[in-house]
Amino acid sequence: MKLHVAIAAAAMLLSTAAHAQFQKPEDAVKYRQSAFAVMGNHFNRIGAMVQGRVPFDAKVAQENAAIVAMLGKLPWAGFTPETEKLKSRVKPEAWAEMDKVRAGADKMMKAVAELDAAARTGNLDAVKKTFGDAAATCKACHDAYRE
Amino acid sequence: MKLHVAIAAAAMLLSTAAHAQFQKPEDAVKYRQSAFAVMGNHFNRIGAMVQGRVPFDAKVAQENAAIVAMLGKLPWAGFTPETEKLKSRVKPEAWAEMDKVRAGADKMMKAVAELDAAARTGNLDAVKKTFGDAAATCKACHDAYRE
Repeated sequence: MKLHVAIAAAAMLLSTAAHAQFQKPEDAVKYRQSAFAVMGNHFNRIGAMVQGRVPFDAKVAQENAAIVAMLGKLPWAGFTPETEKLKSRVKPEAWAEMDKVRAGADKMMKAVAELDAAARTGNLDAVKKTFGDAAATCKACHDAYRE
Repeated sequence: MKLHVAIAAAAMLLSTAAHAQFQKPEDAVKYRQSAFAVMGNHFNRIGAMVQGRVPFDAKVAQENAAIVAMLGKLPWAGFTPETEKLKSRVKPEAWAEMDKVRAGADKMMKAVAELDAAARTGNLDAVKKTFGDAAATCKACHDAYRE
């Protein structure tokens, strides 16, 4: 149930992303890169606990997962057609297969919503499982579409 | 009451920020700049409605205010002493007066929590008022501490 709520919340917030506006294409690139950068930082903080590099703290995991879940919805609005020719690490394949990129984004958002739900339970095993699943969705797109 | 809840949530999440970790000082700079960039984008979307450049949509205002309120807590962890000598737009005065910077950050977080609470009411006048107050807290620090 929590998962359904989280996914509904994700779908709702996606409307925000879809409406995001940028004055210049460069702003869209900066926006999406910034959203990924902040998300990555907080995702890695959970990773440090999952991998035992820092002690597991359920509250910290929950806080970070909530940030990741919110930020995961944002960068996609920055992949506007006008940004295709701008310098970034996006491979040409991504623009040619934007439907697959969107599908990958959907998987990622679902996975981080599940991580968020798991973190709310405070159960380390659940956090480990959903963190791994979420990390796999990151890697899939990075491998295919990022230089 | 909603405001108190929002402020309590802000205080709770601040602990996340305080624990944020960075492998290199450069990562801290990128993190704080990224958080500000994403926050600014969503803050400006509310601004467009407040200023009548786009029609007021209470749901969109609420979504954006929630993002701003969450992101507003984050950048401060990136102002680590190790980043003082790195290239950025932070004026030397900021490092000399970090207690004032922190006080300004607190004001901003309180102001965006009030904007978030106002946006939840769906009342445009309340959004206008709290948006203006929040914008003033941005400007105060930018004028004093940003090149």
